Amino acid sequence: MVYEFLIKDLNRIKSQKSIGTDKGLAKIGDGIVNLAYSVAKSIFLTKNNLRDKIFRTGSKVSKQILANALKNADMKDFAKNRADAHDLADTGEALVAYVWLSKNLTLNGIIDFLTNNLSGDLTNRSEEIKSATIAFTNLFINIRKFLPEK
Amino acid sequence: MVYEFLIKDLNRIKSQKSIGTDKGLAKIGDGIVNLAYSVAKSIFLTKNNLRDKIFRTGSKVSKQILANALKNADMKDFAKNRADAHDLADTGEALVAYVWLSKNLTLNGIIDFLTNNLSGDLTNRSEEIKSATIAFTNLFINIRKFLPEK
Repeated sequence: MVYEFLIKDLNRIKSQKSIGTDKGLAKIGDGIVNLAYSVAKSIFLTKNNLRDKIFRTGSKVSKQILANALKNADMKDFAKNRADAHDLADTGEALVAYVWLSKNLTLNGIIDFLTNNLSGDLTNRSEEIKSATIAFTNLFINIRKFLPEK
Repeated sequence: MVYEFLIKDLNRIKSQKSIGTDKGLAKIGDGIVNLAYSVAKSIFLTKNNLRDKIFRTGSKVSKQILANALKNADMKDFAKNRADAHDLADTGEALVAYVWLSKNLTLNGIIDFLTNNLSGDLTNRSEEIKSATIAFTNLFINIRKFLPEK
């Protein structure tokens, strides 16, 4: 099934802010981001441990990580004016949902992208925050081409 | 990328309980279930309203709904003995994750299945609970063929 009709209204306006500040989109994006990161982290940990152990984890990505990633990607223009960290994170999630609903990126595509952009020791909390921030920064930069110019 | 190596250990044992009581699998499944239901509900509400309105929602499926669906599907054997509602819901989520990681069902497949199995007025909370319970009951029955016999 094609889900693009779920963003028909946004495609009529097609502005950075209408997409980036849509609350429903942010909620759907929250689910995509957390699921994709959970699986990517599971894959990364399973492939990068010496004991041949299999990891399955459900890991939530903090709002701070997503907010910083959006800033690093220089995409604050998609958020509302004077956005706080929570708003910026919501914007990041909304953008991911928009690109996913537009069929420009699949869930597996996001998982693979994140997996390939993770590094370091993810069992160390501060290393994980650094690594996840980089991975999401790169993801945002990568999806920008599917989003409106202004 | 293929994610089946994430369930290699479970495929070695391949028992109903080892899959149905795996905590990591339940966490991944939680993300799949909630994302799939959010999109299915968005699609259903968008297609079934008279004002041509577009709905985008992030809706969490309650543990009670998943627990009842697993019971209705007669699949309590996958859960641990004396399982409470929370345990049964976790089992339902773990089963969904297992089937998804086995590539026997895609996220889009789950979304389409749920959409087609929803009915009634989902803006009415008690109707939604009934409808979601039926949809997940049917989903569990549908994935049973991809799970071990005992």
